[in-house]
Amino acid sequence: MNDHSFLQDFHHVATIGATSNNGVDRQAATANDAATRTWFAQWIQDTGFELRVDGIGNMFGLVEWTPGAPYVLIGSHLDSQPLAGRFDGAYGVVAAMHAAQEISRRIKSTGQAPKFNLAVVNWFNEEGSRFAPSLMGSSVFAGLFDQDETLAIVDPDNISVRQALSEIGFLGTDPRPVPAAYAEIHIEQGRILEREGIDIGLVEHSWYTQKLDIEVLGEQSHTGATAMADRHDALIAASKIVLMVHDVTKDYEEEALVSSIGRLSVEPNSPIVVARRVHLVADLRSGDPAIVRSAREKLLRDIEALAREHDIEIRVNDFDVRQIRYYPESGLELTAKTAGNLGLSTRRLATMAGHDSVAMNSIVPTVMLFIPSVDGVSHCEREFTTDADMVKGLHMLTEVAQQLVHGKLTEGNDKDASFPSPERAAVGPSAS
Amino acid sequence: MNDHSFLQDFHHVATIGATSNNGVDRQAATANDAATRTWFAQWIQDTGFELRVDGIGNMFGLVEWTPGAPYVLIGSHLDSQPLAGRFDGAYGVVAAMHAAQEISRRIKSTGQAPKFNLAVVNWFNEEGSRFAPSLMGSSVFAGLFDQDETLAIVDPDNISVRQALSEIGFLGTDPRPVPAAYAEIHIEQGRILEREGIDIGLVEHSWYTQKLDIEVLGEQSHTGATAMADRHDALIAASKIVLMVHDVTKDYEEEALVSSIGRLSVEPNSPIVVARRVHLVADLRSGDPAIVRSAREKLLRDIEALAREHDIEIRVNDFDVRQIRYYPESGLELTAKTAGNLGLSTRRLATMAGHDSVAMNSIVPTVMLFIPSVDGVSHCEREFTTDADMVKGLHMLTEVAQQLVHGKLTEGNDKDASFPSPERAAVGPSAS
Repeated sequence: MNDHSFLQDFHHVATIGATSNNGVDRQAATANDAATRTWFAQWIQDTGFELRVDGIGNMFGLVEWTPGAPYVLIGSHLDSQPLAGRFDGAYGVVAAMHAAQEISRRIKSTGQAPKFNLAVVNWFNEEGSRFAPSLMGSSVFAGLFDQDETLAIVDPDNISVRQALSEIGFLGTDPRPVPAAYAEIHIEQGRILEREGIDIGLVEHSWYTQKLDIEVLGEQSHTGATAMADRHDALIAASKIVLMVHDVTKDYEEEALVSSIGRLSVEPNSPIVVARRVHLVADLRSGDPAIVRSAREKLLRDIEALAREHDIEIRVNDFDVRQIRYYPESGLELTAKTAGNLGLSTRRLATMAGHDSVAMNSIVPTVMLFIPSVDGVSHCEREFTTDADMVKGLHMLTEVAQQLVHGKLTEGNDKDASFPSPERAAVGPSAS
Repeated sequence: MNDHSFLQDFHHVATIGATSNNGVDRQAATANDAATRTWFAQWIQDTGFELRVDGIGNMFGLVEWTPGAPYVLIGSHLDSQPLAGRFDGAYGVVAAMHAAQEISRRIKSTGQAPKFNLAVVNWFNEEGSRFAPSLMGSSVFAGLFDQDETLAIVDPDNISVRQALSEIGFLGTDPRPVPAAYAEIHIEQGRILEREGIDIGLVEHSWYTQKLDIEVLGEQSHTGATAMADRHDALIAASKIVLMVHDVTKDYEEEALVSSIGRLSVEPNSPIVVARRVHLVADLRSGDPAIVRSAREKLLRDIEALAREHDIEIRVNDFDVRQIRYYPESGLELTAKTAGNLGLSTRRLATMAGHDSVAMNSIVPTVMLFIPSVDGVSHCEREFTTDADMVKGLHMLTEVAQQLVHGKLTEGNDKDASFPSPERAAVGPSAS
């Protein structure tokens, strides 16, 4: 295991699309995303792995020991939010690269072919900031999204996914590797591991999440000539909705519900024109689906009352509803044991954020691992994880992937894993 | 006087850049603005007037009876807000065209040259929606803005005024006519004339206005991973500012202060990222400068407290402060008498909105006239004024302009008009 070479690669990737405050800006299918992709493709070829790019821009580096056998996939994503941190996603891909290289060395030295082959993956557009929704590449891979419909999705400049991928030379035609299992490692993006001094988080399940698409339709008028009483200002009503969506979290136990409005656009957005239309996207998440549902009900009622009060039209639509997904118990047991052997401390937790592993978990046995995040901050330039923590995670992923290629998660001890995984009875978040 | 021909021209101009709901969209120096300009230029030439375009895109149609004499200017603007009404500005230009044509006929038939010559004007970028600030062409003409600095102003796509005017072929080099007086007629954009059944509004003074440029600086983070307690959400604080700016009007007599936030932009504006930065522009207007100043003071105090409460940085800057400007008393008297002779009812009122006449009033004796607006709505597609009201205004403007070219406002009875006009003691708005 060459920790130094791993850290070199990780810190090199952080220079691609680097921002002035130690972050990166590599939105999907932009020039900066293309630059990391080119670097990753070069590494795959230099390492002697087989490069494949599929029809939604997912990139795979394949190593085949057992002809015709399915592949254990390990990886994450190299794209980022605008002005984002350098760890989110990229850490998982670079760790997977070095884990695969180490496993490849070990297998070569023993001469014994394992049950499965191995592939490192860089999923397309995990972040969903330029092209919504997020988890795009892994969801198409898992059959959750239709590929042609997804390729037709456009960014705010009306450029389609198909055009953007084609322009950067990453709209591939290669066959997808048949998956046997999936493992991903990622920074926590929360502060539980840091607070408790734990090395590795074992992700039990994802949170229940949903979005609300909200359109506030007022009437455009002249700010400098229309009496206050005669206005139907879409921005006043929209501002009240922003605060409602925030305040509804206070109706539940602390941090049991998180909510936000991150996107809000005003039309016509002229300093001397009362807003005609405001479009907002609200995001609601909880470990307990009942909490999201009751918060949603309250918001719909309050928004309806607000529309009446302001004599304004407000349209609200549900979208991007994501059920709680449980990772297989056998994977949690396997990873706990592996960590024990490495002398690493672990705890189980839930993930509030979406990850490509959530999509993969719907089709193959999947393992999701976290390493600590300083202050729990993410999607911003001051996101940070220490080299030491990254190296511990690399060792963990290597040992887990090693066992996966030998068929550990797919035989005998995975009775409890059923795919696609059903939504179980609601549980409180172990992450709260 | 050919009322039919005036109405034909007015309704023709409304087809240029027409929107689906009877409005127009002709932002400054866009293709639609260029189309109205080309139509206006053609009319000037067909009528036998002299076409001039100055270095900031103002267009003049000159008729000279007395070589070397200054010009009475009459007109308004053909540009519009996005999805705007078809009356705001365009009515004043088309009325001025037909008033000038009528006066020209009369003078030709008498064979007697008046004291001043006459020019119809279409001011560049009155609206200021694409390129801020508003009143751009008239302010450069009046020497209130520097021409080179103004030409360097850019739109949101970073296209400069210079480039945009040049691309539509209206960056002129013609000498500006020397002005003697200015008259403008416009829809009221309020409901006083309609409510009281009055034909013509005589504008006494403009309101005191100012804008606040507000920048809210939070911290970008992941909506799906950052605890509510750990966030510094710029949009939550910004939404509270939107409501503060609205609610401050309630501290004063009804409609004594009007305020709004029409422009608000969120960064990075991604559905799953807590906002890093929100930029807002607040607009405050009153007939009484003291009211705007005290509202501004209260907002600055409340915003400072909000910044502390949210542990967030908020920067506030004053800009576009416009003093109350009084139109000359002699003009008000002249127009009242003219209306009386025509059998039209009048009342004095103030203008809450800015107009090109405010800029012109700083350099020459200026008259500003209003005709009724149905429901008082403006800067929206359902802005409306009847043909009958428009024709009454045309007759009024014709008679006023006729007297101006004969020197009525610039000799004898204009003792009270001092230029540039000082800010006088504050008075309450007669428009409230």
